[in-house]
Amino acid sequence: MPHPLDSFFAPASIALIGASRDHEKIPGRLLSMLRKNDYPGKIYPVNPNYADIDGLACCKSIAEIGAPVDLAVIVIPARAVLPALEQCAAAGVKNAVIISSGFAEEGGDSAAMQDAIAALARRTGMRISGPNAEGFFSQMQRVAATFSPAADVKPGVVPLVATQKRIGIVAQSGGIGFAYYHRAKAIGIAVSYVVSAGNESDLGAGEFLDYLVQDASTDVILLFIEGIRDVDKFLAAARRAAETRKPVIVTKVGRSGAGQRAAASHTASMAGWSTAYDAVFAKYGFIVSNDLDEALTIAALLASNPLPKGDRVAVVTVSGGAGIWAADAVALQGLQVPELSEMIQAGIRTLMPSYGTARNPIDVTAQGVTSGGLQKSVDLLTASDEVDAVLVVLSLSSEVRKPFDEAELTPALAAQKKPVAFYSYTVPSDFARRELAKSGVVVLSGLTHVGVAMRRLVDYAMFNLPKPADETRLPVRDLSAHLKQQALSEADSKALLRGAGIGLPDEVLVTEKAGLDEAVARVGFPLVMKIQSPDIAHKSEVDGVRVNITTKGEVFLAFEALLNNARRQRPAAVIQGVLVGPMAKKGVEIIVGTMTDKTFGPMVMVGLGGVTTELFRDVIYRPAPVGAEEAGAMLAGLKAAPLLNGFRGGARADVTGLAQLVADISVLAARHAAEIAEIELNPVLVHPEGQGVTIVDALVVGRT
Amino acid sequence: MPHPLDSFFAPASIALIGASRDHEKIPGRLLSMLRKNDYPGKIYPVNPNYADIDGLACCKSIAEIGAPVDLAVIVIPARAVLPALEQCAAAGVKNAVIISSGFAEEGGDSAAMQDAIAALARRTGMRISGPNAEGFFSQMQRVAATFSPAADVKPGVVPLVATQKRIGIVAQSGGIGFAYYHRAKAIGIAVSYVVSAGNESDLGAGEFLDYLVQDASTDVILLFIEGIRDVDKFLAAARRAAETRKPVIVTKVGRSGAGQRAAASHTASMAGWSTAYDAVFAKYGFIVSNDLDEALTIAALLASNPLPKGDRVAVVTVSGGAGIWAADAVALQGLQVPELSEMIQAGIRTLMPSYGTARNPIDVTAQGVTSGGLQKSVDLLTASDEVDAVLVVLSLSSEVRKPFDEAELTPALAAQKKPVAFYSYTVPSDFARRELAKSGVVVLSGLTHVGVAMRRLVDYAMFNLPKPADETRLPVRDLSAHLKQQALSEADSKALLRGAGIGLPDEVLVTEKAGLDEAVARVGFPLVMKIQSPDIAHKSEVDGVRVNITTKGEVFLAFEALLNNARRQRPAAVIQGVLVGPMAKKGVEIIVGTMTDKTFGPMVMVGLGGVTTELFRDVIYRPAPVGAEEAGAMLAGLKAAPLLNGFRGGARADVTGLAQLVADISVLAARHAAEIAEIELNPVLVHPEGQGVTIVDALVVGRT
Repeated sequence: MPHPLDSFFAPASIALIGASRDHEKIPGRLLSMLRKNDYPGKIYPVNPNYADIDGLACCKSIAEIGAPVDLAVIVIPARAVLPALEQCAAAGVKNAVIISSGFAEEGGDSAAMQDAIAALARRTGMRISGPNAEGFFSQMQRVAATFSPAADVKPGVVPLVATQKRIGIVAQSGGIGFAYYHRAKAIGIAVSYVVSAGNESDLGAGEFLDYLVQDASTDVILLFIEGIRDVDKFLAAARRAAETRKPVIVTKVGRSGAGQRAAASHTASMAGWSTAYDAVFAKYGFIVSNDLDEALTIAALLASNPLPKGDRVAVVTVSGGAGIWAADAVALQGLQVPELSEMIQAGIRTLMPSYGTARNPIDVTAQGVTSGGLQKSVDLLTASDEVDAVLVVLSLSSEVRKPFDEAELTPALAAQKKPVAFYSYTVPSDFARRELAKSGVVVLSGLTHVGVAMRRLVDYAMFNLPKPADETRLPVRDLSAHLKQQALSEADSKALLRGAGIGLPDEVLVTEKAGLDEAVARVGFPLVMKIQSPDIAHKSEVDGVRVNITTKGEVFLAFEALLNNARRQRPAAVIQGVLVGPMAKKGVEIIVGTMTDKTFGPMVMVGLGGVTTELFRDVIYRPAPVGAEEAGAMLAGLKAAPLLNGFRGGARADVTGLAQLVADISVLAARHAAEIAEIELNPVLVHPEGQGVTIVDALVVGRT
Repeated sequence: MPHPLDSFFAPASIALIGASRDHEKIPGRLLSMLRKNDYPGKIYPVNPNYADIDGLACCKSIAEIGAPVDLAVIVIPARAVLPALEQCAAAGVKNAVIISSGFAEEGGDSAAMQDAIAALARRTGMRISGPNAEGFFSQMQRVAATFSPAADVKPGVVPLVATQKRIGIVAQSGGIGFAYYHRAKAIGIAVSYVVSAGNESDLGAGEFLDYLVQDASTDVILLFIEGIRDVDKFLAAARRAAETRKPVIVTKVGRSGAGQRAAASHTASMAGWSTAYDAVFAKYGFIVSNDLDEALTIAALLASNPLPKGDRVAVVTVSGGAGIWAADAVALQGLQVPELSEMIQAGIRTLMPSYGTARNPIDVTAQGVTSGGLQKSVDLLTASDEVDAVLVVLSLSSEVRKPFDEAELTPALAAQKKPVAFYSYTVPSDFARRELAKSGVVVLSGLTHVGVAMRRLVDYAMFNLPKPADETRLPVRDLSAHLKQQALSEADSKALLRGAGIGLPDEVLVTEKAGLDEAVARVGFPLVMKIQSPDIAHKSEVDGVRVNITTKGEVFLAFEALLNNARRQRPAAVIQGVLVGPMAKKGVEIIVGTMTDKTFGPMVMVGLGGVTTELFRDVIYRPAPVGAEEAGAMLAGLKAAPLLNGFRGGARADVTGLAQLVADISVLAARHAAEIAEIELNPVLVHPEGQGVTIVDALVVGRT
């Protein structure tokens, strides 16, 4: 299927605006990079100062080319860029990459120039990448529209290619995008595309992601993000990746204060709230990695293996110590390293000396390499139903000795139905990398990264795009009458929630003493009384709550006291009265909330309530709305999940009821995103299974 | 000062028992390895089958050598080892390394042979390393008493040496020990010794550690542990390392079930309880790392830098994206990346193009490399008081372009008073490694590892060996009368604690109804009543507790009910009566305990009490006894520490009182380690500052 960016990534002709003879400088490097990578299309250097460059005729202007141009690569001073783009548009150039810097990242007039570029793109339909970009590289079409040294071709060096599948790289930093490529090449991961997004005046990371998601030559995507600008395109691409099961490994930087500060000035993006990014990544099954080598380790395994069907790992080693370490590394990621059946053990024992062990980790000892025991153990384990993945741990430092027989290993791995990872505890030699590459193996050299990567493969294999939220559960209601002010009192918040169809205990807002008798009659003992004011966010700070009240006498005393406390401590506050409600049954204390992220909009969160929320940060977010199933997955992801599932012999809590509440609240927040900024239900008490949940306190914040 | 192992590590003569002409096999490799590394002493090959090997006269037996032998390297079949050792002893050989396998790791008769070796060592005084060892390597004395390919010397290859300081490696796995060496060499870390401990029939990791701690040529120690056998020597060496401030980086494997299972069969060691190991490591300031590359990154920084004086880091980069990532990487380890003062920023801004930034991370842009801005920024920051460490982030992939001027960089780094780390986001070239090595720089290539390493340096710089426990606070008492049975009831446990001098509330054990009046008079209302039986560990399981009792009527009813509940639900239990005590004041719920580790003996622990202990595993251990200061450090290390330090505007808890209790309990456990296996105080309520702590419940388990 054709894609709007086909002519961008596979241009039949390229105009190089600002071409130069000086190979030491960026403009000169661009031309030589294109030619060294054997770009098969037409190249038109454009520079009024030359008649020809490196044997190519040089045009004085774009207009002079007089032939169709699919892509203009622009590397001239910032002030000259906009006029050049106008000429490109006039000449019918389809796409442009602006390498030049000095735009939004500088602010002021320079930022205004970038706005003009964006406007030009909208006006003319020309697609523009950059400015401040490092360009892109297409292995598939041999387009090196970049000055990155990583795309340089060294004469006489045969590329190391171990994987049959290819990874595509989208990066909001050229340095990092091409560093991924450089490191991928070094360990033999095949690459389809590398694209650096720069300042994204027109084309953004979301649209580039979309290209790679639909691209048949790309099997795995590596994404480096500072802050997404083309959010809708990004989300559509993310959904499509999930639907087509194409793995996306993502790094999001600007997670720390210093990182955010820097991201703001770097490509003039706001790094945004990383928690919201992580929530979006989780929704679409993106594999998050915050380390370059770890991300590449995950990519290497994905590009050279099928997905695992379960979480049982066999570790095969030639060094006892390294095997133990590897078993730890995968087990500490929550994977199983099961002891093997006696049958398998007996088979393996015939292949090793008596001081080896076949239990798992399987130590065939150093002799296992020469005797063929290593090879045979791998064969046995790839064929066995007892494990879902195999980790081979050995020393691959030799420049001469082959650890495996290619003729045996290649068919064994080709027939594999499970991932087989190869880790070398010594520095792998180029010889070993090239030998194993023949069998499609990427040699890995970071053990923790391998453990994490194997875990991520298991998680990814189990991921399914969650079912959409059930929008029909909550009636569509006009809530504007409830949202006359920004911060609502508990009583007003609860009225809004009731109005929206959320179930709440029956409570009575009492404004005068005379109303107490009726309230007590309706609510019954034991009851709770709480001061109500939109100006008092934390009632406990004004001693504004009385619980477990069991007599009428206490009710009247409490009413007086609560009002007096509030009036004395917050004389300016508007007091609405006292909310009288039933004392809730016991339950696990949970917090449920929604808030609005400036990039992704409404988010829903759930966490263990009480002191622990803050202390252990045990909360999970997702973009709203979520269905009950996705809400259930959120709950299962809490560290405190055991508390809900019958902790220490206690009753299992009503997880179904809680998940439904989370889903309903998320639908409410998403539906009314234009009016409601925040909802906080804290605490929600989750009662034993079948007994539902109780919203004890609620706060709604409107957008007004 | 001479050390007993001097003649082991620096032998004037070596007998190679089992020497061979076959360089492909281990015995042959041993001889060629010794010679390739230019061993300067005498080598005596011993093998009855040869007259000479590789030009060296070959002796038929050890006795035939007829000259002093400092070290015998033994590589013959297992059954022949013991007789050979006897001959060595008879010939006055001082030390032996047994490479041969097939001893304790096989069990049965083979294990008995190892016992005989150990006995021989004790009897003769000959020091023996192995069996099942990979030998050792001394860079200092050019002794390659190992068959490891990592010790091989490649003709024509100039070693890469970047660090002036040297690391020493002790490993309970030859494969890993020499993998450390292989990787260290590859990045230019100088190494003093590598020793693989094997089965440790005589010489163990503890004694080898002791050697490196006192060795003047070793500045940093890398330790790989499966399970320590020579515990006393290990602890003495650990203390000495802490006292002399020689950093020890330790990896302990066998942390997972599968890892433990494998460790048990590998070098026949028990991996032991990793938590106790971590407690010991923490006590002596060992730097724990569970990843090979991470450990080497820490070692590289320690071997090429002074320690930081604080936790403020400047990140200098040539790529915006990489700089943001690096800022995240250090900030997420809890280090500061402060915005620099306007003065420093102004100084740096003169060195970079307008689209760079000087705030921190400092992005001098790609131009900064050629313009000298990178170099000058590093100069400015090494001299500045505003940061304690500098992280330089750049691409070092070029095979020709020098990123720094050696003549400028070398003196700048030589004069440095703070660590300067260099991270390359592309794969560093050999050229760049060698260029920067001239200035004493190890190029690092794993960003997460760099962040962790910088954090570990800050922690290590702040570490001080804690003051010893104050043994005089608790009177020395005979507690044997309290320890007639193994598990004590709460009342008996508390009686023991009172007897030992630990402060507890006044409580009364009531055995008959008639005693209740007196108990109430003594305790006062409100009070708590608890069933007492050494056979009922969890009183709540038999509904055996009543709290907040405020009237005599309730007291009598509760007494009956508690006894009836217990008799009905545990008819076989011996019931002692009902413990009547005061209702404790409110406080933060903490658990304090001691237990006995089979390797390191008594341990003390403290954690947040209640549900959270188990759920969030928020507990800290140390070997007992600890002083109040060390106990305070334990408390500060809890994730829940904020709860004690005035959380959400609450009162600060009596941390001093709690720390003193932890210290006292640890002294008690250590002093009575032969009688007491376990103490558990759960909960301890910690009241506001100055109001002390209350031990609510207590359990003592004896050794009987």
